[in-house]
Amino acid sequence: MTTTEQQSVLFDKVCIIGIGLIGSSLARALKQAQLATYIHAVDQSEAARGDAAALGIADDVTSDVSVAADCDLIIIATPVGVMPDVLATLSGIVKEGAIIMDVGSVKGSVASAGEAMPAHFHVVPAHPIAGTENSGPAAGFAELFQQRWCILTPLNRQNEDYAAAVSKVEKLWRGIGSDVVSMDASHHDLALAVTSHLPHLIAFTLVGAADDVENVNEAEVVKYSAGGFRDFTRIAASDPVMWRDVFLHNKDAVLEVLGRFSEELAVMQRAIRWGDAEALEKAFTRSRGLRQAIIEAGQETAEPNFGRDKK
Amino acid sequence: MTTTEQQSVLFDKVCIIGIGLIGSSLARALKQAQLATYIHAVDQSEAARGDAAALGIADDVTSDVSVAADCDLIIIATPVGVMPDVLATLSGIVKEGAIIMDVGSVKGSVASAGEAMPAHFHVVPAHPIAGTENSGPAAGFAELFQQRWCILTPLNRQNEDYAAAVSKVEKLWRGIGSDVVSMDASHHDLALAVTSHLPHLIAFTLVGAADDVENVNEAEVVKYSAGGFRDFTRIAASDPVMWRDVFLHNKDAVLEVLGRFSEELAVMQRAIRWGDAEALEKAFTRSRGLRQAIIEAGQETAEPNFGRDKK
Repeated sequence: MTTTEQQSVLFDKVCIIGIGLIGSSLARALKQAQLATYIHAVDQSEAARGDAAALGIADDVTSDVSVAADCDLIIIATPVGVMPDVLATLSGIVKEGAIIMDVGSVKGSVASAGEAMPAHFHVVPAHPIAGTENSGPAAGFAELFQQRWCILTPLNRQNEDYAAAVSKVEKLWRGIGSDVVSMDASHHDLALAVTSHLPHLIAFTLVGAADDVENVNEAEVVKYSAGGFRDFTRIAASDPVMWRDVFLHNKDAVLEVLGRFSEELAVMQRAIRWGDAEALEKAFTRSRGLRQAIIEAGQETAEPNFGRDKK
Repeated sequence: MTTTEQQSVLFDKVCIIGIGLIGSSLARALKQAQLATYIHAVDQSEAARGDAAALGIADDVTSDVSVAADCDLIIIATPVGVMPDVLATLSGIVKEGAIIMDVGSVKGSVASAGEAMPAHFHVVPAHPIAGTENSGPAAGFAELFQQRWCILTPLNRQNEDYAAAVSKVEKLWRGIGSDVVSMDASHHDLALAVTSHLPHLIAFTLVGAADDVENVNEAEVVKYSAGGFRDFTRIAASDPVMWRDVFLHNKDAVLEVLGRFSEELAVMQRAIRWGDAEALEKAFTRSRGLRQAIIEAGQETAEPNFGRDKK
């Protein structure tokens, strides 16, 4: 485990809008690393507010976004679809010099909305490549971001104040154990279409399609899922609204990489139909190396079966 | 953990042909549960024999299949493609009343070969729904089959001796902690196409296709794989020769379920292209329940991220 760097307080008052898996994990991580003095949690869901209050993961919990007015950092951790609206609301509330950071899985749409904002506050789009299949305030934990990458897609603003805001956001992520990299929003959206959005789409589709096979019932799918199927159910159990918004807002990149996948799948289908043993073995052999590289990069466990069979 | 049932010795001499992940796990499990007195391990690979001998998982290790001659149980744990040949060789060697059990992932081809065999020995096809992404004698462990299903696809032989052989094989699996169910070979091959073969094909394809996207390099795929991609690399790291043979020998069922998957994927693609939020959310919502059912059936961990993030 990476030891969290020693930090002094980075932000006095923080407001987290959307206290689900990511928002609540950030609240816990900021508190644990002592990077924030006071944290407001804002959520439109009464159930989420009740859980967040009971768990004590923020200093106060409210449905009223106007608490953002005197905050130094406002974190938008809602589904991607409502972010532009939240950003527009915040633009009339936040104080001069405030930093607004979103943590959504698609960056192009937030970057566009951010570029249109007045310059007296600083929009810094961020995306931590971390999560679990669970949702809600109770699912979060302080260590979620440790040894994971956070991608920043800074706006095209060439001034010192903005650069200082980006630098502060970078310190925040490093302070809770992440590695940080910056890139264009459009490159982010293509790279994440490959490593996250397409895998989720495929998993949702495979798990859904299992219902549709005649003569194989759900009880059998459940019983024999250890043959491989169960792996797909993990990410297919992710939050449906969050993922709906990801696909609606990263349409072009997802359709592009889905096209590549479908081509490759057609090639495999043909190899099976014609009994092309050599083509199958060659295709299956090349994917072993990639997992090893991911394990060596600290992004995956080396334990067989993800270590899940340990009793 | 299911406690392994107390058993007396079921088989005096056992021969395991193919001492990889499954064969070596069976050797260990049979020894641990004291179900076999003496175990021969047979493998054509010098490296596998060296590992098996060094690990001491069998009483002797050889390349000579003729050791099967005086065995009560012969287990064929080779890739599916060579099983009919191994079975033909064994038919000229094994003693009267011997049981030959294969443990392959496709049952139709072995069932056909088995039906053509003389009746003085008993072919009992079996398929333990258990495994890891690793291969070879060192990857095996005695607990692999605990709380997993083993599917038997008995031949169409209506005599007491054969029924007694099937019953003994069932005791073996229960004795090493498995649940046992019997079904037709053709139903097995369809059900496993859904829960194992298609998931592997999709994972191999997705991991392979990640190489093909312009402007996203392998280093980025590795870095940001925690977004979902890494899950697929586990089963895509499975043994290429074993899986080549599965697809060659279960062609019809795999093409059938692949067709269903491709239809569903086209529907999702269209929903993304046209921004059909309702269709996406509905499709993503229905897959959550299946994972919960799999967890409740004891076939999956309830830990977020498969528990892999525990430090």
